[in-house]
Amino acid sequence: MSLAVVLVRSRNSLNIGAAARAMSNFGFDDLRLVEAYRVAAEEARSGVKADAVLQQARDFSSVAEAVADCHLVIGTTALGPRDVEMPCKSLIDAAKQMRRSKGQVALLFGSEKFGLSNDDMSHCHLLTRIPTRLDHRAMNLGQAVAVTLYELIRTGAEPLAEKPVVEAAAGSNERIGELLIEALTLSGYAKQAGGVSQERKIRQLIRRMGLSEKDAMAVQGMLRQMLWKLRG
Amino acid sequence: MSLAVVLVRSRNSLNIGAAARAMSNFGFDDLRLVEAYRVAAEEARSGVKADAVLQQARDFSSVAEAVADCHLVIGTTALGPRDVEMPCKSLIDAAKQMRRSKGQVALLFGSEKFGLSNDDMSHCHLLTRIPTRLDHRAMNLGQAVAVTLYELIRTGAEPLAEKPVVEAAAGSNERIGELLIEALTLSGYAKQAGGVSQERKIRQLIRRMGLSEKDAMAVQGMLRQMLWKLRG
Repeated sequence: MSLAVVLVRSRNSLNIGAAARAMSNFGFDDLRLVEAYRVAAEEARSGVKADAVLQQARDFSSVAEAVADCHLVIGTTALGPRDVEMPCKSLIDAAKQMRRSKGQVALLFGSEKFGLSNDDMSHCHLLTRIPTRLDHRAMNLGQAVAVTLYELIRTGAEPLAEKPVVEAAAGSNERIGELLIEALTLSGYAKQAGGVSQERKIRQLIRRMGLSEKDAMAVQGMLRQMLWKLRG
Repeated sequence: MSLAVVLVRSRNSLNIGAAARAMSNFGFDDLRLVEAYRVAAEEARSGVKADAVLQQARDFSSVAEAVADCHLVIGTTALGPRDVEMPCKSLIDAAKQMRRSKGQVALLFGSEKFGLSNDDMSHCHLLTRIPTRLDHRAMNLGQAVAVTLYELIRTGAEPLAEKPVVEAAAGSNERIGELLIEALTLSGYAKQAGGVSQERKIRQLIRRMGLSEKDAMAVQGMLRQMLWKLRG
């Protein structure tokens, strides 16, 4: 498993530093910052504890860009499975799925105050939550990163039974979404329902299909052909 | 298991606060501070995030006093088992032993800079360590507390009830296949590859998507709209 930790809209340099430290403790080095509060990111990088992970952290302006090369995107949430309209796995099960994946995996953490937005989540294949008390669900960001990475490595020695699958890269799913939205717009579909939430629903629907990279290519080919006709 | 978290010579109010927060997240409330740097302890208690755990934290002037009522005392260390003259268990095994214990259990964390001293360790029945990389062993105190408590509760945590999904009926998938094949034929796609084996591949691709009945209805709606345009 190749893992990227993606911090979305982090506002606190101490949390960014703590996340990087936990990554280093547990042997991960690909940190990606999306719309990080610039001052916090700079403070974190210049901190005494700024280590290799932090020095090579990359900045992105959107979740879509940050996860473009990722085949499995998992969002973390403090919400329960009943509060979100998406598949939500226990941390234990989500970690198993991540370890099985042969492609690039992304693990998303939302902002300290608001967590991941619905739009951020629409880029995820599934959500996971740390089993905190329902009366005090929200963890500190750095601690949540540490616990999640610990769960990923703790059973690292366990043999994996299931066959590895190469999931479609996030960029491939995103491209399908774009093609489909264009085709639907040309057909007069998007107008009926319309707007951003409609596009989000379509993106989410595509993620739920759990396409392999090969199938994603086939679907793109079909949509391109239909688009060619619809445009003409 | 009745658990006390004992922070020995903590120097940083943020770490004390973070430890208390993780305790609250995972359902523990007995925090004991040994020789805490007084300013740090006061700062932590007056912090915005100071919750019930922190408010009722007790101060002790020695490890011996802090663990006087405890039947099992476990120290945490970043050192390997070869570096200490004491039994050292993996976190997984130490957590098992703690959960089995019927008496009061104490979990000791040393200072940010030096960890537990030999003298502190002499009060412990055994040591445990979080499986960090040997090149970067030392964890942030608040994160170490969070990971350790997570290991304690993780196996007892209720598995998340995943939302039941109603898979698409075979007829729904079949209908998608028919609509898609018609749309592709009208677009000139099927001609290129063509024939029965092409149709079979498309049907299989749709099965692999594992659509829910609800999603299958949505996909049918999209295809119908595109078909309406393609026919017109």
